[in-house]
Amino acid sequence: MLKIRLVIAGLLISVSLVNAQTDNGVMRMDEFRRPRKRQIIQIPDVGGFKTLKCDFHMHTMFSDGLVWPTVRVQEAWQEGLDVMAITDHIEYTPHSVDVNVNHNRPWELAKDVAAENNIVFIKGTEITRQTPPGHFNAIFIGDASGYIEDREGNEKDKEAVMKAAGQDAFIFWNHPGWQVDRIEGSYEWIELIDQLYKEKVLDGIEVINGFGFHKKALDWCVDNDLTVLGTTDVHNIIGYDYELGDYVHRSMTLVFAKERTAESVREALEAGRTVAWASKYIAGKEEHVRNLFNACVETGSRFYSKGDRDYFEIKNNSDIYFEMILKEGEGTGKITLYPRSSQIITAQSGQAGLVYDVVTAFIRSDKHLSVYIPLRTD
Amino acid sequence: MLKIRLVIAGLLISVSLVNAQTDNGVMRMDEFRRPRKRQIIQIPDVGGFKTLKCDFHMHTMFSDGLVWPTVRVQEAWQEGLDVMAITDHIEYTPHSVDVNVNHNRPWELAKDVAAENNIVFIKGTEITRQTPPGHFNAIFIGDASGYIEDREGNEKDKEAVMKAAGQDAFIFWNHPGWQVDRIEGSYEWIELIDQLYKEKVLDGIEVINGFGFHKKALDWCVDNDLTVLGTTDVHNIIGYDYELGDYVHRSMTLVFAKERTAESVREALEAGRTVAWASKYIAGKEEHVRNLFNACVETGSRFYSKGDRDYFEIKNNSDIYFEMILKEGEGTGKITLYPRSSQIITAQSGQAGLVYDVVTAFIRSDKHLSVYIPLRTD
Amino acid sequence: MLKIRLVIAGLLISVSLVNAQTDNGVMRMDEFRRPRKRQIIQIPDVGGFKTLKCDFHMHTMFSDGLVWPTVRVQEAWQEGLDVMAITDHIEYTPHSVDVNVNHNRPWELAKDVAAENNIVFIKGTEITRQTPPGHFNAIFIGDASGYIEDREGNEKDKEAVMKAAGQDAFIFWNHPGWQVDRIEGSYEWIELIDQLYKEKVLDGIEVINGFGFHKKALDWCVDNDLTVLGTTDVHNIIGYDYELGDYVHRSMTLVFAKERTAESVREALEAGRTVAWASKYIAGKEEHVRNLFNACVETGSRFYSKGDRDYFEIKNNSDIYFEMILKEGEGTGKITLYPRSSQIITAQSGQAGLVYDVVTAFIRSDKHLSVYIPLRTD
Amino acid sequence: MLKIRLVIAGLLISVSLVNAQTDNGVMRMDEFRRPRKRQIIQIPDVGGFKTLKCDFHMHTMFSDGLVWPTVRVQEAWQEGLDVMAITDHIEYTPHSVDVNVNHNRPWELAKDVAAENNIVFIKGTEITRQTPPGHFNAIFIGDASGYIEDREGNEKDKEAVMKAAGQDAFIFWNHPGWQVDRIEGSYEWIELIDQLYKEKVLDGIEVINGFGFHKKALDWCVDNDLTVLGTTDVHNIIGYDYELGDYVHRSMTLVFAKERTAESVREALEAGRTVAWASKYIAGKEEHVRNLFNACVETGSRFYSKGDRDYFEIKNNSDIYFEMILKEGEGTGKITLYPRSSQIITAQSGQAGLVYDVVTAFIRSDKHLSVYIPLRTD
Repeated sequence: MLKIRLVIAGLLISVSLVNAQTDNGVMRMDEFRRPRKRQIIQIPDVGGFKTLKCDFHMHTMFSDGLVWPTVRVQEAWQEGLDVMAITDHIEYTPHSVDVNVNHNRPWELAKDVAAENNIVFIKGTEITRQTPPGHFNAIFIGDASGYIEDREGNEKDKEAVMKAAGQDAFIFWNHPGWQVDRIEGSYEWIELIDQLYKEKVLDGIEVINGFGFHKKALDWCVDNDLTVLGTTDVHNIIGYDYELGDYVHRSMTLVFAKERTAESVREALEAGRTVAWASKYIAGKEEHVRNLFNACVETGSRFYSKGDRDYFEIKNNSDIYFEMILKEGEGTGKITLYPRSSQIITAQSGQAGLVYDVVTAFIRSDKHLSVYIPLRTD
Repeated sequence: MLKIRLVIAGLLISVSLVNAQTDNGVMRMDEFRRPRKRQIIQIPDVGGFKTLKCDFHMHTMFSDGLVWPTVRVQEAWQEGLDVMAITDHIEYTPHSVDVNVNHNRPWELAKDVAAENNIVFIKGTEITRQTPPGHFNAIFIGDASGYIEDREGNEKDKEAVMKAAGQDAFIFWNHPGWQVDRIEGSYEWIELIDQLYKEKVLDGIEVINGFGFHKKALDWCVDNDLTVLGTTDVHNIIGYDYELGDYVHRSMTLVFAKERTAESVREALEAGRTVAWASKYIAGKEEHVRNLFNACVETGSRFYSKGDRDYFEIKNNSDIYFEMILKEGEGTGKITLYPRSSQIITAQSGQAGLVYDVVTAFIRSDKHLSVYIPLRTD
Repeated sequence: MLKIRLVIAGLLISVSLVNAQTDNGVMRMDEFRRPRKRQIIQIPDVGGFKTLKCDFHMHTMFSDGLVWPTVRVQEAWQEGLDVMAITDHIEYTPHSVDVNVNHNRPWELAKDVAAENNIVFIKGTEITRQTPPGHFNAIFIGDASGYIEDREGNEKDKEAVMKAAGQDAFIFWNHPGWQVDRIEGSYEWIELIDQLYKEKVLDGIEVINGFGFHKKALDWCVDNDLTVLGTTDVHNIIGYDYELGDYVHRSMTLVFAKERTAESVREALEAGRTVAWASKYIAGKEEHVRNLFNACVETGSRFYSKGDRDYFEIKNNSDIYFEMILKEGEGTGKITLYPRSSQIITAQSGQAGLVYDVVTAFIRSDKHLSVYIPLRTD
Repeated sequence: MLKIRLVIAGLLISVSLVNAQTDNGVMRMDEFRRPRKRQIIQIPDVGGFKTLKCDFHMHTMFSDGLVWPTVRVQEAWQEGLDVMAITDHIEYTPHSVDVNVNHNRPWELAKDVAAENNIVFIKGTEITRQTPPGHFNAIFIGDASGYIEDREGNEKDKEAVMKAAGQDAFIFWNHPGWQVDRIEGSYEWIELIDQLYKEKVLDGIEVINGFGFHKKALDWCVDNDLTVLGTTDVHNIIGYDYELGDYVHRSMTLVFAKERTAESVREALEAGRTVAWASKYIAGKEEHVRNLFNACVETGSRFYSKGDRDYFEIKNNSDIYFEMILKEGEGTGKITLYPRSSQIITAQSGQAGLVYDVVTAFIRSDKHLSVYIPLRTD
């Protein structure tokens, strides 16, 4: 057997041999394993609410996804999500030759693992109609069997959605601009959506779906008081789709909830307290985007002056990225607030504040959040 | 020619806005996607043979793995493997409530994707007996149905393996030290293995399985002329198990083959031309480990002298990590050759060469590769 | 509003061409620049004090360092330091052929840049005697000229230190175990140190200097109520010495101060409210190490139970790494709290808490911090 | 003293304690050090010439740089440069209050360190006139003293350059588009340049300087047979300017030389065998850019067919990034060849080849390299 002699007070120690733990006949090389840990996505609580990181749209091999349901929990845990829903397609199960169709199974298979990992797990499904209207997600559903599985024609589109409504589900329209290239002009607020909206069946819209920001959907949410959602709609492994790192997280919905419970998530979704987040961009209703910005970004008092310039430090205490362009006042023209970092800005002395457009934060399809940066000299 | 005219109203261009490509109502944020590419693992060809990177032991949700078979191809492609086999368990199918048992399906579902991605895909399975003897992998098999599924008792262990032998499969004993803690003392060259070996049914042994280096297995391979194998035995996502990066790759077998074809892989495996690789460690028969080292590492002629010290540059043209400790001669005591990098070493003038132990390269359980580093002054 | 119109002759947009901004004859490739930002080192405030990140020991080319003084400010800003001192050697100026000796110049050259970057900049120097006693740092000094420059013999060692004492400097003994290999046995609490200590001239000791943890110094600080310091003693570029990243920061002193001012730093240093930090290790007096741990690590209430096991989530809200080994109670045996991440632990039901040794936190040379992890079921 | 007990055959080993090497009273934490290594930039040799990675434009604190000359060698070594020149300003020495002006000192101080690190070190300087004409680099110079130091007025511009010419230096015009915003219209081929060119004093032009691609300079080199150069013009630390990583290297000149010697570099420069490289972009004369592309990129024979599509693998065996847009034929529209990786492309069957524009490779200011990708079916 290999003998490892550590002459602790001597000169040469082969670190690699030391690292490689040895026991009876098997050398363990666990230093090459990926560490097991749940990353904390750093976003402060907002306005007395807890900021929950949520993804309400994911697939598994029970519809057209490529992973076992528990993998979705594993990914969510590693990436620091608080809340998740698996929403496999009702009407589309291309693996059915090998996998028995059972729309309740993803939930059943993953729920204990979610519970053990302190993930709030919400039962959901995707109602998968032809486009238009396309797809709807229903979360907080009951029994996932008994939904309408026939997707031919548009006759049953409404009926399919009403099944979820009958279960008192929270229902949102998915990626309205999907396949937009096949649609003449662009995607629209179609008749069925209008009906569902007026009958208070439709609760929200996916403004961000994966790597697509469906801008018109943001306006519809703002104008009609629908809830803004951001999701992955992931089918493959998250790490295959996303270049995860300091600047890139999976697309998600930030939910500002009273508690970290399914009930509170539901309450917050119904109240529309959300912001959709996609790596460097956020989108939502002005009130929530503004509150989020204010919770994350902090401007200190003047710490230095030179000539007629005052110096200020502006800190981003979050994992969100903000890029700001000066609109009013005399000061630094562009500020890039990388995650968990600060910048020094300067401003002409004697001003009470500056106005910036946060060009990575959308409050309408064509409007950025405008923020006032106070210049305190106390 | 491609003409791009940026017509901009204003001086400052927000790079992030530019990055986010815009089309009719949907802003694309593809800059956050993980790039699609096949990484080249850089290891030179060895002694006239192509160095193929191979993993012959992987699982999918058709036995106890967590991914759809095509994910294994996708991972292999991204990570730069040349050759792969999916080897789901015959006797262990814990997902059978949901997934119809069919031992040929992983192969059927993945083979076209493998072909499209230029991966040499070899049909295989894992014969999963109680420990001891434990598990065997059979690759280059025929029909995967009709194998013995009953794993109770040891009566049928040999019969189960002989089914694969009847298909002229290449058969290796998996992770012989698995569950070693349950075995009194350590794992051993047991009677069944001896029979299979003598009857020329057993072709090789897993010396490296995932993060375990089964050291006694290396000696058995060396002493009995069995083929050395290194595999992942992956069940989860590769990126979940491995901290992939410059120093960490999945565990694998380097096969020195005449061509990049299944036939050549088979020939090389039978000829025993392999080295097992696990991130910072390699293990194999001395001849192959030495040839591999020599193909990767190159020592230049003396480029400088100061006093009685000569200076040499030693280059590692590969993605393998080598750590070397001086055994004979007067020179640099320890050399760490990180992937694709070089080091300067110095030596007392007047020596023809130095002898180092490559402490990350094993040619027996208790023996490192010893290399002669020539000190040329031409 | 900023309008960007991309008028393109063709369908495919080359993102890289878009990224490369163009103006009159010069294409800018700023996407390859390192972003300008000040990283926030995340460590919560501790016990009502601000946690300031400080490095009180650095060199420039005015003694034997390799960079211009402003580079030290630049590095400090990028890495998120709050407080810094440049402490070039008085008695050792090997660049004096090219650089005019002037011990006040590093301070003069860097102080405006420090002010503009919101760095608390403290004037200092290194009194560089032969070993033993070796070197002392004096910070909060006055004029750096007029110090004793003759370092031959030990006669003037005390006098050299007393020069700083005469300026009411804060004085600490540097890296007491430096060159320990040249000393018989080990380094010791020598007569001169004892004198300086008894005369209240010595205020603290470097327990961590770069990559060395001088363990005996920790005991001396604890037993004699001296202040614990951690510094880089950097001569080269920080990024050349340190593999900066999520787990590696420069070695530093965490100072728990009332305000982020030089005066408050002085008060805190004199009160001994410090912890030395070197990447994965912290060292200090028990009170401060414990308070720091408690500020960083938070254990939630039981969130799940299965059989006789309760589940808890333990969060590390800091950039410090903690590794914990169970000492009392029935629960998870080892907990690794990576920066900004959490772990799930389980414990036998019915216990009020568990006791762990934080093996990466030293409160004496031979003693780790012992912590009580409460297991709340509310 | 801390006792570390390694129970090798036991269960729990605290890796962190093991990693931290201990000797008499000082615990070493060398695992946080940046590894010492010279990265190999992987670019194949081209057309029988060695591909040397060269930077001929760097500053130190002897003019307006921020580092000691040896730091430039250290950086060059780590980053894998073969050849370097330090070219401090003659006419601009803002540190002269502290640093004695001596234009030969950077060379003298760094040359032994360069020799020990196997770096080909070429003596140079920057002749720093007002703009226009701006700055010239002279490399392969003799004594750097005695140059004209007066930079006022344009009367002595030519004389200043002729001093270098008198030493038989290789002379190139630096960053001609620098301060272009101050110039009416754009930068131009001015009278002095024309004179120097016609008198054969001017040998080349910086086409790439740091993060600027001076596009008109490329045309001037092509049309007048001047040598294309790419340099950093670094003043700060390289790692402060560049986000070094897989896709980002310092800007440099690739020189195709007969040998890795100063003489061969000179010969190659005079023969114009160069390509300028700036992270994702290359620029040079068509012949050299094409040869470089062909040395790096390799297209395999058809490995698969499906319907009327043939499949090919295209490999990039280099650290250069290539982005290609299809111009002629029916095949994959866009190919991104990341460093050391490959892509699968498909093409309509029956074609002999495809034509792509390499949009990251410039052979004129407005022209990309066009390449023919053969589609072999053997």
